[in-house]
Amino acid sequence: MIIFGIDPGYGIIGYGVIEKLGNKYNVLDYGVVTTPAKTDLSIRLNMMYDEIDAKIKQYNPDCIAIEELFFNKNITTAIAVAQARGALVLCATKANKKIYEYTPLQIKQAITGYGRADKGQMQRMVQILLNLTSIPKPDDAADALAAALCCGNSERFSS
Amino acid sequence: MIIFGIDPGYGIIGYGVIEKLGNKYNVLDYGVVTTPAKTDLSIRLNMMYDEIDAKIKQYNPDCIAIEELFFNKNITTAIAVAQARGALVLCATKANKKIYEYTPLQIKQAITGYGRADKGQMQRMVQILLNLTSIPKPDDAADALAAALCCGNSERFSS
Repeated sequence: MIIFGIDPGYGIIGYGVIEKLGNKYNVLDYGVVTTPAKTDLSIRLNMMYDEIDAKIKQYNPDCIAIEELFFNKNITTAIAVAQARGALVLCATKANKKIYEYTPLQIKQAITGYGRADKGQMQRMVQILLNLTSIPKPDDAADALAAALCCGNSERFSS
Repeated sequence: MIIFGIDPGYGIIGYGVIEKLGNKYNVLDYGVVTTPAKTDLSIRLNMMYDEIDAKIKQYNPDCIAIEELFFNKNITTAIAVAQARGALVLCATKANKKIYEYTPLQIKQAITGYGRADKGQMQRMVQILLNLTSIPKPDDAADALAAALCCGNSERFSS
């Protein structure tokens, strides 16, 4: 099965595409979509929608994993990223894919077995689980791969 | 010119469609789209997108006015509504309409001349400006009509 992971963002959106074969994973693609600063919200949402939509169509995944938002600080940033996440969830829905949403805590626990793992621990585990020669960059792409791995490791796909 | 106003929400989305003829307005339609509680975000975003999209196609407006979010309290509510707003802004963009965004303060000032007008004052002014026999209900529809009026009253359409 093919799993498409998304790390939602406003300026940078991470994506990662993995294939699960038995208990092993292959990486098919990962990277980021960026939207230009000082540009209208509507244009930025449209850009990210179209670029992620093209990637989803390219890989035709069985499901899409999207990280949930967790904010306890800047509400202005939260609103910007949440608007972007709404557009990205819609993109996944319009592609008729099953969507799984995971909190950062769930993803950390699924990948490292430890909900308070730091970014470095997470990224090394993503590298190991995906048998990559180096840590995937940038961080947003690694986070998207982690969301896809969380989906792949979850109970419902274990048999 | 025809202006389509949107009051973004998660459970209730207001819309209002007005036609500007010289300095007068006709109301073409107003109402709300609702999404069911205890339903996946992806389904709710898809529902509101499709219903607002159908209304936009029905009236083929010259532009779309969308209220901006203002939150200073519950961040969980802010994130939910912001995700919905992202889907709605995308809907307007995909319809190839010019989008205007207004803060609640801008809308109040445009309608009543007073940025701290209360809900009752706002609704009475919407009723008067649109020559309606009663105050438009529910509140979300009145807010959407107010956003459309703000757009119609703004400098760029005055000549």
